[in-house]
Amino acid sequence: MRTRVGIIGAGPAGLLLSHLLHLNGIDSVVLERRDRDYCEHRQRAGVVEHGVAEILRSSGVGERMDREGFVHHGIELRYDGKRHRVDFPALTGGRDVMIYAQTEIVKDLIARRLTDGGTLLFEAEATAIEGIETDQPRVRFTRGGVEDVLECEFVVACDGFHGIGRSSLPPELVQVFEKSYPFGWLGILADVPPSCDELIYAHSERGFALHSMRSEHVSRLYLQVPVDTDVKEWSDERIWDELSARFALRDGSWTLKRGPITDKSVTPMRSFVSEPMSHGRLYLAGDAAHIVPPTGAKGLNLALHDVNLLAKALVAADAGDPGPLERYSEDALRRVWRAEHFSYWMTTLLHRDPAASEFDHRLQLSHLEFLASSTAACTQLAENYTGLPQV
Amino acid sequence: MRTRVGIIGAGPAGLLLSHLLHLNGIDSVVLERRDRDYCEHRQRAGVVEHGVAEILRSSGVGERMDREGFVHHGIELRYDGKRHRVDFPALTGGRDVMIYAQTEIVKDLIARRLTDGGTLLFEAEATAIEGIETDQPRVRFTRGGVEDVLECEFVVACDGFHGIGRSSLPPELVQVFEKSYPFGWLGILADVPPSCDELIYAHSERGFALHSMRSEHVSRLYLQVPVDTDVKEWSDERIWDELSARFALRDGSWTLKRGPITDKSVTPMRSFVSEPMSHGRLYLAGDAAHIVPPTGAKGLNLALHDVNLLAKALVAADAGDPGPLERYSEDALRRVWRAEHFSYWMTTLLHRDPAASEFDHRLQLSHLEFLASSTAACTQLAENYTGLPQV
Repeated sequence: MRTRVGIIGAGPAGLLLSHLLHLNGIDSVVLERRDRDYCEHRQRAGVVEHGVAEILRSSGVGERMDREGFVHHGIELRYDGKRHRVDFPALTGGRDVMIYAQTEIVKDLIARRLTDGGTLLFEAEATAIEGIETDQPRVRFTRGGVEDVLECEFVVACDGFHGIGRSSLPPELVQVFEKSYPFGWLGILADVPPSCDELIYAHSERGFALHSMRSEHVSRLYLQVPVDTDVKEWSDERIWDELSARFALRDGSWTLKRGPITDKSVTPMRSFVSEPMSHGRLYLAGDAAHIVPPTGAKGLNLALHDVNLLAKALVAADAGDPGPLERYSEDALRRVWRAEHFSYWMTTLLHRDPAASEFDHRLQLSHLEFLASSTAACTQLAENYTGLPQV
Repeated sequence: MRTRVGIIGAGPAGLLLSHLLHLNGIDSVVLERRDRDYCEHRQRAGVVEHGVAEILRSSGVGERMDREGFVHHGIELRYDGKRHRVDFPALTGGRDVMIYAQTEIVKDLIARRLTDGGTLLFEAEATAIEGIETDQPRVRFTRGGVEDVLECEFVVACDGFHGIGRSSLPPELVQVFEKSYPFGWLGILADVPPSCDELIYAHSERGFALHSMRSEHVSRLYLQVPVDTDVKEWSDERIWDELSARFALRDGSWTLKRGPITDKSVTPMRSFVSEPMSHGRLYLAGDAAHIVPPTGAKGLNLALHDVNLLAKALVAADAGDPGPLERYSEDALRRVWRAEHFSYWMTTLLHRDPAASEFDHRLQLSHLEFLASSTAACTQLAENYTGLPQV
């Protein structure tokens, strides 16, 4: 099998890349080890940056997002029993975010690629990437028990943290940066209308909590829990009680609505960057190269920024200018590190670190008070959250 | 001996308080264990916030400061061999800072108190504070080998971190918050014109450095050093070489001028807050209640804000409104915690922590790049550095 760009992974990054290349007349094949149903139903992020929504829209795959997603003009910070709204358009000159689940973006992209005659090979597991230092790299893969080879000009690994992409770079060239956190998120999906119109990020003595939503009828909520938490220890009642306590306002003027919990899982939190993001004819995008803790809602957005940059670079190379492709790693990493810093910042601002001192905790509260009192401080949050146009 | 307000400590806080009270017709006596010459020559901070300069000016003790001090409209950040200027007036609606040494403020205040007939008792060591839960507190002190008692209505301890003020609060009421840092500052005074017009805060691979100045002919410079550094290990040549390396620009477009070093010392860095800042008739101000690392230039300013607040509260109490005095601790602590957070933030932004990972270091660089690229991020720094009008 032969194509111009071999893409590993049918997550949002791999699919969007394939779509953007197609719009520019560049053929690609997407190899995905899972089946289509799995890809279309895994629960992931749901906050789409202003500029990323624009990328989807302008490339013709934003129609359902614009119809069914929710434009949010702000978030609420809660701390010390008080609330402070962060008004995105007012602080950023009109930018906002779109609430639309990653899994819906995947469905839209798969449908569009298939309509456009794209080649998406599900249950096709990439097993090796070869010849990346030549101009004829190959991806070996297995499908239905049969081994095959995808011959290409470029290989792009959008195959996540555990994929083979990153480990196919020469180890002596790779530098890894990472940080783990002593807590994770217990996330639930519940069949209950959201108790709020916008996301609530709450810092409390008891730990962090986040109220998000999937639709008018489905709420998505998260609780900071110790890193080794067994989800079985958390009954539905215990979850709702803890969420209520963490979101509580001092004046009692807010109530969390409860409903049947349909999904429950614990996610660890990690910061991770692997440099460089390319070598020879192999390029990494998304979680294959970097992980952020979910607090700043940057994981999905970074992945889509990566492939947007890479698509432009591949188009430029196709037109005879190899510069952007040579600078891909360097250019992508500037945004990656900005997002790594922002995600770390949001995480440490809002969570309670069990190892932190009372001094550290007072600094958190002073920091939150400053955010609530300084337009500049709040603008900095809003700029990062809605997504920086250029980094 | 009897007065209305007994003040312990003839540093800038005790002296300004005595002066402000005098302007409002309230008598005080200042007890200081050192002699006048010592007080007038100890080297301390030199950056006066916009609003603090205004307090000095409006209370009639700013004349020499305005004549001999330097108004600075910004600072320079250096990192990764690059420079970024933070323009204070542009970012804060016209605020700036005054470069005028603390020791000069002390001279001005001592001269003014003596001209106004104030009672400053030098070499008078306070040994005990008694009766703070009554309306007739007393300060026992020793002067020239003779024990004496200062009877007063209020006692204000501006006697620094090692003074008796803080330890005279009932221990069961006191809560202490603190953080130490694994580095200190090696500070020098040198007889050489400053190599810059504004302060330079430099983050380098080799550690933090700060270029400040005392006059057109005297430079003040600092180097981050390990906490247990013996100043004898640092020859003049080694100091200049290290400073030059840390301030170096990638394009080589800047040179550090060298000259005879006249003073050399190592200061540890600490964050410390003791709550509450008052009990009964005893009030704490400045270093007696809180310490900040020097990176944000907040120590002197916080102390002067404390006594400005306290003077207003004592004047209000004198006019029959005890409210501000009752709220003094709470009101002062809001600014204290703001400054604690800012000082911690500036410190961790700019220093190299020997225990930090390469991930942490990349976050520092991303944070510095963001400061250089985001007006909002830089405004937040400028607001805190020039001093928040209200906290």
